[in-house]
Amino acid sequence: MSATLRFGEGNLQYDAQGRLRHLLSIEGLRERELLQILDTAESFLSIANRSVKKTPTLRGRTIVNLFFENSTRTRSTFELAAKRLSADVLNIAVGTSSASKGESLMDTVDNLVAMQVDGFVIRHPEAGAAHLVVRHLGDSVLVVNAGDGQHAHPTQALLDVFTIRRLAGPIEDRVVAIVGDVLHSRVARSQIHALSILGCPEIRVIGPSTLVPEALSALGVHVYHDLRAGLRGVDVICALRLQRERMVSHRLPSLDEFHGRFGLTPERLRWADPGALVLHPGPMNRGVEIASEVADGAQAVILQQVAHGLAVRMAVLAILAGAAGGE
Amino acid sequence: MSATLRFGEGNLQYDAQGRLRHLLSIEGLRERELLQILDTAESFLSIANRSVKKTPTLRGRTIVNLFFENSTRTRSTFELAAKRLSADVLNIAVGTSSASKGESLMDTVDNLVAMQVDGFVIRHPEAGAAHLVVRHLGDSVLVVNAGDGQHAHPTQALLDVFTIRRLAGPIEDRVVAIVGDVLHSRVARSQIHALSILGCPEIRVIGPSTLVPEALSALGVHVYHDLRAGLRGVDVICALRLQRERMVSHRLPSLDEFHGRFGLTPERLRWADPGALVLHPGPMNRGVEIASEVADGAQAVILQQVAHGLAVRMAVLAILAGAAGGE
Amino acid sequence: MSATLRFGEGNLQYDAQGRLRHLLSIEGLRERELLQILDTAESFLSIANRSVKKTPTLRGRTIVNLFFENSTRTRSTFELAAKRLSADVLNIAVGTSSASKGESLMDTVDNLVAMQVDGFVIRHPEAGAAHLVVRHLGDSVLVVNAGDGQHAHPTQALLDVFTIRRLAGPIEDRVVAIVGDVLHSRVARSQIHALSILGCPEIRVIGPSTLVPEALSALGVHVYHDLRAGLRGVDVICALRLQRERMVSHRLPSLDEFHGRFGLTPERLRWADPGALVLHPGPMNRGVEIASEVADGAQAVILQQVAHGLAVRMAVLAILAGAAGGE
Repeated sequence: MSATLRFGEGNLQYDAQGRLRHLLSIEGLRERELLQILDTAESFLSIANRSVKKTPTLRGRTIVNLFFENSTRTRSTFELAAKRLSADVLNIAVGTSSASKGESLMDTVDNLVAMQVDGFVIRHPEAGAAHLVVRHLGDSVLVVNAGDGQHAHPTQALLDVFTIRRLAGPIEDRVVAIVGDVLHSRVARSQIHALSILGCPEIRVIGPSTLVPEALSALGVHVYHDLRAGLRGVDVICALRLQRERMVSHRLPSLDEFHGRFGLTPERLRWADPGALVLHPGPMNRGVEIASEVADGAQAVILQQVAHGLAVRMAVLAILAGAAGGE
Repeated sequence: MSATLRFGEGNLQYDAQGRLRHLLSIEGLRERELLQILDTAESFLSIANRSVKKTPTLRGRTIVNLFFENSTRTRSTFELAAKRLSADVLNIAVGTSSASKGESLMDTVDNLVAMQVDGFVIRHPEAGAAHLVVRHLGDSVLVVNAGDGQHAHPTQALLDVFTIRRLAGPIEDRVVAIVGDVLHSRVARSQIHALSILGCPEIRVIGPSTLVPEALSALGVHVYHDLRAGLRGVDVICALRLQRERMVSHRLPSLDEFHGRFGLTPERLRWADPGALVLHPGPMNRGVEIASEVADGAQAVILQQVAHGLAVRMAVLAILAGAAGGE
Repeated sequence: MSATLRFGEGNLQYDAQGRLRHLLSIEGLRERELLQILDTAESFLSIANRSVKKTPTLRGRTIVNLFFENSTRTRSTFELAAKRLSADVLNIAVGTSSASKGESLMDTVDNLVAMQVDGFVIRHPEAGAAHLVVRHLGDSVLVVNAGDGQHAHPTQALLDVFTIRRLAGPIEDRVVAIVGDVLHSRVARSQIHALSILGCPEIRVIGPSTLVPEALSALGVHVYHDLRAGLRGVDVICALRLQRERMVSHRLPSLDEFHGRFGLTPERLRWADPGALVLHPGPMNRGVEIASEVADGAQAVILQQVAHGLAVRMAVLAILAGAAGGE
């Protein structure tokens, strides 16, 4: 995971005045920015319950959803987040665009900047794509990394810690386990950084040794290859989506075997603390990493995560645009 | 056609207070709801003639177009209907979405509900898809069926009866013929229910016996296998789009033969009442079910249907949202 | 290029009162309309620097982007132009639409007109497509040709002359060279007309004889097959995108050979006047028609072209809608 260090996010995310201008990864953020985002998201949650769910925060500004990978959930929440802040939204799904004419990512963003857009939400299959865009553009336009390869997915991690804080209590006091393909997961990577920064006392990662190697302990997490042992005393369980593509790479014998050893079933859920919360970033592979009874059960907070994700993304856009009340 | 009964729309479309909350099929609606929709649509028709074609009816609400089948016309009219009511619109065309990651329809809608959307317009290749969504979600979010397999397409039927009422006079007084592949048509099925509920004294269905079997008479319609006999004394002719896919199932020998026996040509139009109106739900197969001279002729009201469709869909969205003036 | 004459744009673009109602080609426009568009665009340029980048000019109106070819840049700028004028925008990318059900272009536009849309922006692979739409619809709805086959791309030419006028000085005083595949380029064709109408004293076209035949001199341009000779004394260089498809037609031996003879490199740029501007309509083939050092160099105004394109398209939509201040 040392690859992340090459990106040097620590400086890249802040503008010359030290204000958060881009959200590229959780790594490199300070606790106070995380808290500002979470607190701002709290204030946006209430808007969702009004019949007119809009604020004029970003009126007249344009946010571009630049997606080089398919996504319903993430694209939709960013689109709704921007629209509820009264921004105009331009959706660009590459594959149906000039990129098929061979234009480079940098030429694409340069052109959109020339159209005076105010921000980019970028999903890209290559790690570091959003960082490269920021290095290229500087601070004139805000950039949110909505998932870059196996590197980072910071708004997912933010909505997860928002959900834990809101539904499971103080993070400084919770034991959190991340279960599944931690090695290749941009979600897990961002979760670990967010939980660490917010003072989570014990972060566990659970999965087969091919997907959760011992070397991960260098990140300050506790590695388990046995689900029962890993869940003991846990307050929050973050399931990861199993990427079926991994099968090809022979890291997994079969989906069935994975489910047999690490799938979250009602019986195994009892190995954790009573009332432990179950999170999943979606979309779920029901019957693989999570049984339907758990996904739809009382301990799952998967749909609350989605609702929180909208509020968190509104908060991120507002703060990066310098338009949040807290600024 | 007994399959429709399994859906039990009678109750499903109304909320606990007996108000119309979903539009899933015409079957199960009462005459007074149909009239409320048609009357509300009349009031929205006039908006189309203003230079600012918007009302604040659904300001701050979000309508999701969830389309599992391609459609320009229906998707565009629902999108414009929602935008003219000042709603935000989220277009999701599945195939370019997480559904390609294997997520179920119910997980997709649950996620969107968690994003606090206010309504779904759903087109799906399987009959009953929109009903299943309502059974799953209950009344928290409005649902419009924009076509489900061969089952129903209620807004199409509503715009057709709106067009008949407006351009051909009282439905209680008109003879209406539906021509073509009635057996597989969700449009025909919904038209028959709407005409029946509104007191149409004579509904005829005309086509080859493979596509218009005698058994259809159980729906209270008169079955004809001869176009000349079927058109005699008719005030309104509803042509159906011939699904080319049917050819594969050997229900039709060829498009040419269909056109030869049942295609609407200027000569055959004279078999009906002078001035009989010609409707078509589009998109047309010119030269198959309808000759271009008829499609573009004085008796065709096909483009008026489209204009009416926009007003009817505005009315449906406003009424289901509880935001129509008449509520 | 005589094909253009068949379209008879001279009259088609004006309404009965002699006002510009459609923008189909530069050919047939008068100098005063070109100047009105350029001057109106100047006034819209300043809006881009406000934090709220919107004017209420087209509030309540609907503009349809009807694209039968892929395009990020042109579709995005028209979408943003319409949104910044407060119009609603309906994007229709054919291929994902009823056109795949075999509906004709005219049936598609008729349907959209029935939905009371106010304007079309049409890109189509066939020359004359937008003209046919205007012949079919008349003046009830405005039509902008956003590129039709090898015929015309008038808004691109307008943003190019806007850029020249703004950054290189009076067009009546400049020598302009167009380099590349002039024969097949709708951009070149429109540029030549725009420069002529605005009084450019010398227009040169430069390229291999297969792509820049002598016959082009009938358009009043000077033909060069040698880059060095063609660039001598030139103030403005308009590079064209090399369509890779041309290779198939054996008009070009290879991309390498084209670059070797006509690619714009820093060394060759010195053959032109010092400070000559370099324009390119994008997307660029870096290393083919233009070297990256030139594309990103001090003489390139390629991104300014994009910014100007947005202002020019706002001006065009406002003027055709009869809503520009200057009207």
